[in-house]
Amino acid sequence: MLQAESFEECAAREVKEETGLDIENVEAMAVINSVQSADAPNPSHFVTVIVRAALSDPVQVPVNVEPDKCQGWAWYKWDRLPDPLFRPLEVLVGSGFNPFLCPPQLVYNV
Amino acid sequence: MLQAESFEECAAREVKEETGLDIENVEAMAVINSVQSADAPNPSHFVTVIVRAALSDPVQVPVNVEPDKCQGWAWYKWDRLPDPLFRPLEVLVGSGFNPFLCPPQLVYNV
Repeated sequence: MLQAESFEECAAREVKEETGLDIENVEAMAVINSVQSADAPNPSHFVTVIVRAALSDPVQVPVNVEPDKCQGWAWYKWDRLPDPLFRPLEVLVGSGFNPFLCPPQLVYNV
Repeated sequence: MLQAESFEECAAREVKEETGLDIENVEAMAVINSVQSADAPNPSHFVTVIVRAALSDPVQVPVNVEPDKCQGWAWYKWDRLPDPLFRPLEVLVGSGFNPFLCPPQLVYNV
Protein backbone atom coordinates (compact mmCIF):
# COMPACT_ATOMS: atom_id res chain seq x y z
CA MET A 1 0.00 0.00 0.00
CA LEU A 2 1.37 3.43 -0.88
CA GLN A 3 1.19 6.36 1.50
CA ALA A 4 -2.17 8.19 1.30
CA GLU A 5 -3.82 5.48 -0.82
CA SER A 6 -7.27 4.12 -0.02
CA PHE A 7 -7.73 0.34 0.17
CA GLU A 8 -9.70 0.49 -3.09
CA GLU A 9 -7.10 2.58 -4.93
CA CYS A 10 -4.37 0.22 -3.80
CA ALA A 11 -6.29 -2.84 -5.03
CA ALA A 12 -7.01 -1.29 -8.43
CA ARG A 13 -3.38 -0.23 -8.86
CA GLU A 14 -1.96 -3.62 -7.91
CA VAL A 15 -4.40 -5.53 -10.13
CA LYS A 16 -3.47 -3.26 -13.03
CA GLU A 17 0.26 -3.64 -12.38
CA GLU A 18 0.14 -7.43 -12.09
CA THR A 19 -2.59 -8.42 -14.58
CA GLY A 20 -3.24 -5.41 -16.81
CA LEU A 21 -6.95 -5.59 -15.82
CA ASP A 22 -9.02 -2.50 -15.04
CA ILE A 23 -11.44 -3.00 -12.15
CA GLU A 24 -14.30 -0.98 -10.68
CA ASN A 25 -16.78 -1.11 -7.77
CA VAL A 26 -13.94 -2.14 -5.46
CA GLU A 27 -15.25 -2.98 -1.96
CA ALA A 28 -13.28 -4.05 1.13
CA MET A 29 -14.71 -7.30 2.51
CA ALA A 30 -12.43 -8.67 5.24
CA VAL A 31 -9.15 -8.10 7.06
CA ILE A 32 -6.67 -10.85 7.90
CA ASN A 33 -3.74 -10.69 10.29
CA SER A 34 -1.24 -13.33 9.12
CA VAL A 35 1.66 -14.25 11.38
CA GLN A 36 4.43 -16.74 10.66
CA SER A 37 6.17 -16.83 14.02
CA ALA A 38 9.86 -16.17 14.61
CA ASP A 39 10.63 -19.91 14.68
CA ALA A 40 8.87 -20.62 11.36
CA PRO A 41 10.99 -21.25 8.22
CA ASN A 42 10.04 -17.82 6.85
CA PRO A 43 8.98 -15.52 9.71
CA SER A 44 6.60 -12.77 8.58
CA HIS A 45 3.67 -10.62 9.65
CA PHE A 46 1.24 -9.19 7.11
CA VAL A 47 -2.16 -7.52 7.42
CA THR A 48 -4.22 -8.29 4.31
CA VAL A 49 -7.35 -6.38 3.31
CA ILE A 50 -9.53 -8.62 1.09
CA VAL A 51 -11.53 -6.75 -1.56
CA ARG A 52 -14.00 -7.73 -4.26
CA ALA A 53 -14.40 -5.87 -7.55
CA ALA A 54 -15.92 -6.09 -11.01
CA LEU A 55 -14.04 -5.95 -14.30
CA SER A 56 -14.50 -2.57 -15.95
CA ASP A 57 -14.72 -4.43 -19.29
CA PRO A 58 -16.02 -8.01 -18.90
CA VAL A 59 -14.14 -9.25 -21.98
CA GLN A 60 -10.71 -8.08 -20.79
CA VAL A 61 -8.12 -10.87 -20.62
CA PRO A 62 -5.47 -10.92 -17.85
CA VAL A 63 -1.85 -10.53 -18.93
CA ASN A 64 1.12 -11.94 -17.00
CA VAL A 65 2.82 -8.56 -16.60
CA GLU A 66 5.50 -9.83 -14.18
CA PRO A 67 6.56 -13.27 -15.51
CA ASP A 68 9.65 -13.28 -13.28
CA LYS A 69 7.31 -13.29 -10.22
CA CYS A 70 4.23 -15.14 -11.52
CA GLN A 71 3.59 -18.29 -13.59
CA GLY A 72 0.33 -16.97 -15.01
CA TRP A 73 -3.32 -16.04 -14.40
CA ALA A 74 -6.50 -18.05 -14.84
CA TRP A 75 -10.15 -17.79 -13.74
CA TYR A 76 -11.60 -20.33 -11.30
CA LYS A 77 -15.06 -21.05 -9.92
CA TRP A 78 -15.25 -19.97 -6.25
CA ASP A 79 -16.06 -23.56 -5.19
CA ARG A 80 -13.24 -25.03 -7.32
CA LEU A 81 -10.22 -22.91 -6.41
CA PRO A 82 -6.71 -24.32 -7.00
CA ASP A 83 -4.39 -25.71 -4.32
CA PRO A 84 -2.28 -24.32 -2.67
CA LEU A 85 -3.93 -20.94 -2.14
CA PHE A 86 -2.40 -17.75 -0.75
CA ARG A 87 -2.67 -18.54 2.99
CA PRO A 88 -4.98 -15.63 4.00
CA LEU A 89 -7.32 -16.55 1.13
CA GLU A 90 -7.28 -20.21 2.18
CA VAL A 91 -8.40 -19.21 5.70
CA LEU A 92 -11.13 -16.97 4.32
CA VAL A 93 -12.49 -19.66 2.01
CA GLY A 94 -12.32 -22.23 4.84
CA SER A 95 -14.42 -19.95 7.06
CA GLY A 96 -17.32 -20.20 4.60
CA PHE A 97 -16.85 -16.68 3.32
CA ASN A 98 -18.44 -16.13 -0.11
CA PRO A 99 -17.79 -12.80 -1.86
CA PHE A 100 -20.96 -13.21 -3.94
CA LEU A 101 -23.15 -13.45 -0.84
CA CYS A 102 -21.45 -11.39 1.89
CA PRO A 103 -22.15 -7.68 2.25
CA PRO A 104 -19.20 -5.27 2.33
CA GLN A 105 -17.82 -5.00 5.83
CA LEU A 106 -17.13 -2.07 8.13
CA VAL A 107 -14.02 -0.88 6.35
CA TYR A 108 -13.72 2.87 5.90
CA ASN A 109 -11.42 5.39 4.26
CA VAL A 110 -11.41 8.79 5.98
CA MET B 1 1.09 -3.26 16.85
CA LEU B 2 4.07 -5.48 17.69
CA GLN B 3 5.41 -8.07 15.31
CA ALA B 4 3.52 -11.40 15.55
CA GLU B 5 0.72 -9.94 17.71
CA SER B 6 -2.93 -10.59 16.99
CA PHE B 7 -5.31 -7.61 16.81
CA GLU B 8 -6.86 -8.77 20.09
CA GLU B 9 -3.51 -9.17 21.90
CA CYS B 10 -2.45 -5.73 20.73
CA ALA B 11 -5.67 -4.14 21.99
CA ALA B 12 -5.41 -5.81 25.41
CA ARG B 13 -1.75 -4.80 25.77
CA GLU B 14 -2.36 -1.18 24.80
CA VAL B 15 -5.39 -0.82 27.08
CA LYS B 16 -3.35 -2.26 29.95
CA GLU B 17 -0.40 0.04 29.23
CA GLU B 18 -2.49 3.20 28.97
CA THR B 19 -5.28 2.62 31.50
CA GLY B 20 -4.23 -0.28 33.73
CA LEU B 21 -7.47 -2.06 32.80
CA ASP B 22 -7.64 -5.78 32.02
CA ILE B 23 -10.01 -6.64 29.20
CA GLU B 24 -11.42 -9.88 27.77
CA ASN B 25 -13.65 -11.08 24.91
CA VAL B 26 -11.80 -8.74 22.54
CA GLU B 27 -13.41 -8.72 19.07
CA ALA B 28 -12.36 -6.80 15.97
CA MET B 29 -15.31 -4.78 14.64
CA ALA B 30 -14.13 -2.43 11.86
CA VAL B 31 -11.08 -1.21 9.99
CA ILE B 32 -10.43 2.42 9.12
CA ASN B 33 -7.89 3.82 6.67
CA SER B 34 -7.13 7.38 7.81
CA VAL B 35 -5.19 9.67 5.50
CA GLN B 36 -4.12 13.23 6.19
CA SER B 37 -2.76 14.21 2.78
CA ALA B 38 0.72 15.56 2.12
CA ASP B 39 -0.57 19.17 2.06
CA ALA B 40 -2.39 18.86 5.42
CA PRO B 41 -0.86 20.53 8.51
CA ASN B 42 0.15 17.12 9.88
CA PRO B 43 0.43 14.60 7.03
CA SER B 44 -0.14 11.03 8.20
CA HIS B 45 -1.52 7.65 7.18
CA PHE B 46 -2.81 5.17 9.77
CA VAL B 47 -4.82 1.96 9.50
CA THR B 48 -6.94 1.55 12.66
CA VAL B 49 -8.59 -1.71 13.71
CA ILE B 50 -11.57 -0.95 15.96
CA VAL B 51 -12.25 -3.57 18.64
CA ARG B 52 -14.82 -4.02 21.39
CA ALA B 53 -14.14 -5.78 24.66
CA ALA B 54 -15.48 -6.38 28.15
CA LEU B 55 -13.75 -5.50 31.41
CA SER B 56 -12.32 -8.61 33.05
CA ASP B 57 -13.42 -7.13 36.39
CA PRO B 58 -16.41 -4.75 36.05
CA VAL B 59 -15.43 -2.70 39.08
CA GLN B 60 -11.92 -1.89 37.83
CA VAL B 61 -11.18 1.83 37.64
CA PRO B 62 -8.98 3.25 34.83
CA VAL B 63 -5.68 4.83 35.85
CA ASN B 64 -3.93 7.57 33.87
CA VAL B 65 -0.71 5.58 33.43
CA GLU B 66 0.86 8.06 30.99
CA PRO B 67 -0.01 11.55 32.30
CA ASP B 68 2.56 13.15 30.00
CA LYS B 69 0.51 11.94 27.01
CA CYS B 70 -3.05 11.89 28.38
CA GLN B 71 -5.22 14.24 30.46
CA GLY B 72 -7.28 11.42 31.93
CA TRP B 73 -9.90 8.71 31.39
CA ALA B 74 -13.66 8.77 31.89
CA TRP B 75 -16.65 6.63 30.85
CA TYR B 76 -19.26 8.04 28.46
CA LYS B 77 -22.60 6.81 27.13
CA TRP B 78 -22.26 5.78 23.45
CA ASP B 79 -24.85 8.42 22.43
CA ARG B 80 -23.19 11.13 24.53
CA LEU B 81 -19.51 10.92 23.55
CA PRO B 82 -17.25 13.96 24.10
CA ASP B 83 -16.03 16.34 21.39
CA PRO B 84 -13.55 16.28 19.70
CA LEU B 85 -13.20 12.52 19.16
CA PHE B 86 -10.25 10.61 17.72
CA ARG B 87 -10.94 11.11 13.99
CA PRO B 88 -11.43 7.42 13.01
CA LEU B 89 -13.84 7.00 15.92
CA GLU B 90 -15.74 10.13 14.90
CA VAL B 91 -16.24 8.67 11.40
CA LEU B 92 -17.35 5.34 12.81
CA VAL B 93 -19.88 6.95 15.16
CA GLY B 94 -21.13 9.20 12.35
CA SER B 95 -21.77 6.15 10.15
CA GLY B 96 -24.33 4.85 12.64
CA PHE B 97 -22.06 2.09 13.92
CA ASN B 98 -23.07 0.80 17.34
CA PRO B 99 -20.74 -1.67 19.08
CA PHE B 100 -23.61 -2.97 21.21
CA LEU B 101 -25.67 -3.94 18.14
CA CYS B 102 -23.19 -4.79 15.37
CA PRO B 103 -21.86 -8.33 14.99
CA PRO B 104 -18.08 -8.83 14.86
CA GLN B 105 -16.83 -8.36 11.32
CA LEU B 106 -14.74 -10.52 9.01
CA VAL B 107 -11.44 -9.89 10.72
CA TYR B 108 -9.19 -12.92 11.15
CA ASN B 109 -5.88 -13.84 12.71
CA VAL B 110 -4.14 -16.72 10.96
